[in-house]
Amino acid sequence: MSDTKPSVLVVGSVAVDWVITPRAEREESIGGAATFFSIAASYFSNVRLVGVVGEDFPKQGLDDLRARGVDLDGLEVNPEGKTFRWKGKYHENMNGRDTLDTQLGVFEAFDPKLPAHYQDSDYLFLANIVPALQLKVLEQMKTRPKLVGLDSMNLWIDIARDDLVKVIGKVDVLTINEEEAMQLTSEHNLVKAAKAIRGMGPRSLVIKRGEYGALLFHDDEIFSAPALPLEDVVDPTGAGDSFAGGFMGYLARGVEPTGQNLRTAMIYGSVLASYNVEGFSYDTMKNLSVGTIQSRFDQFSRLTDFSKAAL
Amino acid sequence: MSDTKPSVLVVGSVAVDWVITPRAEREESIGGAATFFSIAASYFSNVRLVGVVGEDFPKQGLDDLRARGVDLDGLEVNPEGKTFRWKGKYHENMNGRDTLDTQLGVFEAFDPKLPAHYQDSDYLFLANIVPALQLKVLEQMKTRPKLVGLDSMNLWIDIARDDLVKVIGKVDVLTINEEEAMQLTSEHNLVKAAKAIRGMGPRSLVIKRGEYGALLFHDDEIFSAPALPLEDVVDPTGAGDSFAGGFMGYLARGVEPTGQNLRTAMIYGSVLASYNVEGFSYDTMKNLSVGTIQSRFDQFSRLTDFSKAAL
Repeated sequence: MSDTKPSVLVVGSVAVDWVITPRAEREESIGGAATFFSIAASYFSNVRLVGVVGEDFPKQGLDDLRARGVDLDGLEVNPEGKTFRWKGKYHENMNGRDTLDTQLGVFEAFDPKLPAHYQDSDYLFLANIVPALQLKVLEQMKTRPKLVGLDSMNLWIDIARDDLVKVIGKVDVLTINEEEAMQLTSEHNLVKAAKAIRGMGPRSLVIKRGEYGALLFHDDEIFSAPALPLEDVVDPTGAGDSFAGGFMGYLARGVEPTGQNLRTAMIYGSVLASYNVEGFSYDTMKNLSVGTIQSRFDQFSRLTDFSKAAL
Repeated sequence: MSDTKPSVLVVGSVAVDWVITPRAEREESIGGAATFFSIAASYFSNVRLVGVVGEDFPKQGLDDLRARGVDLDGLEVNPEGKTFRWKGKYHENMNGRDTLDTQLGVFEAFDPKLPAHYQDSDYLFLANIVPALQLKVLEQMKTRPKLVGLDSMNLWIDIARDDLVKVIGKVDVLTINEEEAMQLTSEHNLVKAAKAIRGMGPRSLVIKRGEYGALLFHDDEIFSAPALPLEDVVDPTGAGDSFAGGFMGYLARGVEPTGQNLRTAMIYGSVLASYNVEGFSYDTMKNLSVGTIQSRFDQFSRLTDFSKAAL
């Protein structure tokens, strides 16, 4: 948390959510992929954010991001519209959800512009936005970052596949949901889908499986990161983005993206995601300490520990 | 594989399946929970089987079980009917499936009778049959086995809940699918469902999650066993029973059912299940060696290996 830490730049949505779960509801819940990513990554490295909000965006959101040391020079406040708003309702099991309403607001005309001091960031994460904009951000970098991560969604596979495949070809790590990996490749087997995606360019691939954890495909190896079984999941919104924040934030400390370091990053990502879903918005993720993070990391170690026997 | 190994007794179905997958089909596929369990467990301990077939049951099935050293003194051949037959079709992703036909045949009047030399087995697995029969088997044991495992299904939760809860109260380990655990307890959270089930009696609980692996709840700990991501899943039929066979078979070597040993057993179960789904019936599981089993165990170790960093 000192100024000498390397920086990770994230470009993505900053939003206000209306989250309805079977047991509770929050109408003005601060959200957005770049928000969750930034809070999570801030525990590991300096974070620079590029996004857009309207003047209706809660001041608390800006205060929270600043308190975590996130550089907001790239966050545009557009007085001509409202902040991106998403309203959704989770199913009884807290996994599936239905989108009830989406108001793009100022996000519709979002045209990311990188402040000069952002353009040499060593680490870049392109959160889920239209692939053409992700390409535009890449073009604004003065030097090729050491590591570029990318997230996307089914919508872009449906309506902007060519651009999406183009940007996938330019990144080092793609994070994508299991179903989307299958949709993107027209494969029904995950291992085959992973091969096809890595054939498009990325050296590393993270397949997100929600409550079942995530898989990493890197070199000839597969790593399976479990999710921590939790008794009280309050709000899963932003779990994938918090995962990406912990994952990229850890790598942005300057460790080499070797298979073993990517595995460690997967678990730090899972740790941050596990904290995030225990509260609305980023409530339970904004006041962590190195100690609490390491303590949950140890829980993941114990969760997966086993030994071999001589037969 | 010597005669001095302890014995595990399994009671369950022996069947002929008609398996249809998106890429292949087998009309006379030897199956049944007790069959898969026995082949898998035979790599770790002596196995005694109780079940019933008709005269139509393929001789190859009996030969294969005998070749694996399975004691078939408890397998009744009932000339008055046909072997239990199940016909099913797997979905494109090889996970979901539809049952097209079920012919109970001689299984409908199945009334398990334990040969005298079975009645002092130290390990017992009650595979998925009507709970009243599982209770009857327990009553036939001369001494309480060191460890009793139980499997069940949604059908019995629907139509024989009282008997099911009664038998659950008498066993040490319950293996059950995720959805069934929720259905049994009317909980929507897996951790809460696990607490409720352990409140019914079993010290240990294994929640099966198909392609996502399995969770073990024991003492105050949770262990997450991944499934091995496989590129060619040929036939998932019997995966859960093969898992149970590897799991119980390993424990039936006489190791104490401590948390750590149960974890090891979970992985041996997962190893056997992973081999089983790579072929129809038990084709790819019937000719393993200790070396191939240990080599795939090592794959599971590598699949889950990660290290912590100093933050």
